[in-house]
Amino acid sequence: MDHQYLDGYRQAGLSGVRRKMTALNLDGLIVSDLSVIRWLTGFSGSNARLLVSPDRCTLFTDFRYREQAAAEVRVAETVIASDGFAAEVVAGGYPLGAATGIQSDSMTWDEARRLCARLEPMTAPVPVASFFDDLRMVKNHIELMHMRQAACISEQVLELILPMIRPEATELDIAAEISYQHKKLGAEKDSFDPIVASGSRAAMPHAKPVAAHFRNGELIVIDMGCVCEGYASDQTRTVALGRVSSEDRAIYRIVEEAQQLAVDGARCGMRASELDGIARAYIDRYGYGEAFGHSLGHGVGIDVHEEPRISSKNCRNLEENMVFTIEPGIYLPGRLGVRIEDTVVLRSDGAHPFQRFTKKLIEL
Amino acid sequence: MDHQYLDGYRQAGLSGVRRKMTALNLDGLIVSDLSVIRWLTGFSGSNARLLVSPDRCTLFTDFRYREQAAAEVRVAETVIASDGFAAEVVAGGYPLGAATGIQSDSMTWDEARRLCARLEPMTAPVPVASFFDDLRMVKNHIELMHMRQAACISEQVLELILPMIRPEATELDIAAEISYQHKKLGAEKDSFDPIVASGSRAAMPHAKPVAAHFRNGELIVIDMGCVCEGYASDQTRTVALGRVSSEDRAIYRIVEEAQQLAVDGARCGMRASELDGIARAYIDRYGYGEAFGHSLGHGVGIDVHEEPRISSKNCRNLEENMVFTIEPGIYLPGRLGVRIEDTVVLRSDGAHPFQRFTKKLIEL
Repeated sequence: MDHQYLDGYRQAGLSGVRRKMTALNLDGLIVSDLSVIRWLTGFSGSNARLLVSPDRCTLFTDFRYREQAAAEVRVAETVIASDGFAAEVVAGGYPLGAATGIQSDSMTWDEARRLCARLEPMTAPVPVASFFDDLRMVKNHIELMHMRQAACISEQVLELILPMIRPEATELDIAAEISYQHKKLGAEKDSFDPIVASGSRAAMPHAKPVAAHFRNGELIVIDMGCVCEGYASDQTRTVALGRVSSEDRAIYRIVEEAQQLAVDGARCGMRASELDGIARAYIDRYGYGEAFGHSLGHGVGIDVHEEPRISSKNCRNLEENMVFTIEPGIYLPGRLGVRIEDTVVLRSDGAHPFQRFTKKLIEL
Repeated sequence: MDHQYLDGYRQAGLSGVRRKMTALNLDGLIVSDLSVIRWLTGFSGSNARLLVSPDRCTLFTDFRYREQAAAEVRVAETVIASDGFAAEVVAGGYPLGAATGIQSDSMTWDEARRLCARLEPMTAPVPVASFFDDLRMVKNHIELMHMRQAACISEQVLELILPMIRPEATELDIAAEISYQHKKLGAEKDSFDPIVASGSRAAMPHAKPVAAHFRNGELIVIDMGCVCEGYASDQTRTVALGRVSSEDRAIYRIVEEAQQLAVDGARCGMRASELDGIARAYIDRYGYGEAFGHSLGHGVGIDVHEEPRISSKNCRNLEENMVFTIEPGIYLPGRLGVRIEDTVVLRSDGAHPFQRFTKKLIEL
């Protein structure tokens, strides 16, 4: 089993958290983001708080997850907090030092207010945001393995569903089939609701599938991903039903080439904004800069959207073993949308896409 | 179309919000909970903030949702906030009075801190929690129609999948089939990940389906729901594969009778805790009080868990047209779980379940 490896990586993660706590003069840290808690401890339930101190790590959950926590969590002790986390921390006599960080970018203001009121007699609560972003960006080999597995399942599903795209079928049919096949092939679930958007609906980057039939000569954006062992995949292909116009094909080719340029151009040490700029400049050169209204990509891990954001505003340097998407698009309202997306892992020699599915235009 | 009705109800909802603002001396209210925003405006995108003032209602979202907001929202003006909500509110010159409420139970502490820093020169930010709970609890006839439709789809799916529960199938197979059939029959999506838990796994009330085959003589808890037009359904049945022992059947009957007693006993004006007590006392009488570790039920609406909680701690009076679940259970770790759940609408003459599916034990 991978348990020893995983727990080793989790202990290393905890050490990183503690080093950062020391650097920020925090004697304790209260974590409320369930993705972070899963990353740090393996716990996958829907209710948890984590208290990290220099020599203890305690997971608080409720009675529903007693068995699950026992099965999943080895790097932290588990406490069933019947009266809620705040009451348990106060009553349980956990050692709180002078300053306790509270994860302010995931806890609600309301919970923070109530928690601070309880903690203030014992410790100074300090809001901390984006604490885990840099710690989670660089993936270890078990994380990469799960993400590759998720990508592999989603590619198989794409193969399966393409022949079903016919005038008799609707976007909703295909979206339902994607979710179903993800699970049948072993994924935990979709990493997000699949996007199947045809014709002018594809001009909405986050279109929801509707009960509309596919029509000949239209481009169809299929954006999908699944989750394996808690880790997400994300991929987009744009295909055509029948032959599309030469104008549409030309737009497709611009996106295809911009995407490949960015994949080929990604390097360790480069700023995220530079990478975004490679695709953006290319699309801009053809006059479609305005039609590429989102950033080039985003990190992927336990969350399907995490750091590093690959945007024109992000000066962060890209590092080896970061995983992120490269997904330029052109959206012409009322007419069409094209997006092509791979998820890549950055190595010392450049970006390696998890996806192997062709990026040439498929005319079904 | 239902647009006029819906917008009428939404205007009524806004009026209720404004009356409550007046009562709390708030000149404005910033809403961040997407379920509340959908309830108030119809907007179903994944990024939105709403600013309600005595004579304006403004929805802020990003460019991805320009078309969708135009199609969905008629009771508010829409602003595409390219630099984010806080910047837009400050730059856009929206009239903010002396005190502006901020929905503190859905906004993160981090966003609240940044927002308050921007707003404080112009208005006093006031955290408000649970502002919308009582406004959303009582459903109008369009909401009830959508919820009945969702319940009806989920019942049809239950009919479809029961014959698939055989020793060759796994929990994961059935869970995947439930999600698939929900969509094929017209639901937007599951209202939560289906629970299919057999044998001793059913002792975990929130068990995740696993790749385990069903075994003869075991009880299987199936907890499922879907979403129609934004509104959720929720139902649970426990079935048996083959014949179960007389002890297991006796436990089933206790839950069945406790559930029916609570359905029959629900009345307008009764406290939620009283209703919880009806089922709890019955189960307790048979010595299983400890094994019924969760509350009797919860409200259902746009969120699958909302007010009113039907728990021993909730003194709120139940009112006509509230919708909530009645779902007692008995969980014996290492052995079995039984839960039976209907979602009911409370009328002047008592509780009317949306579900019509038998609650007698089915032995497949």
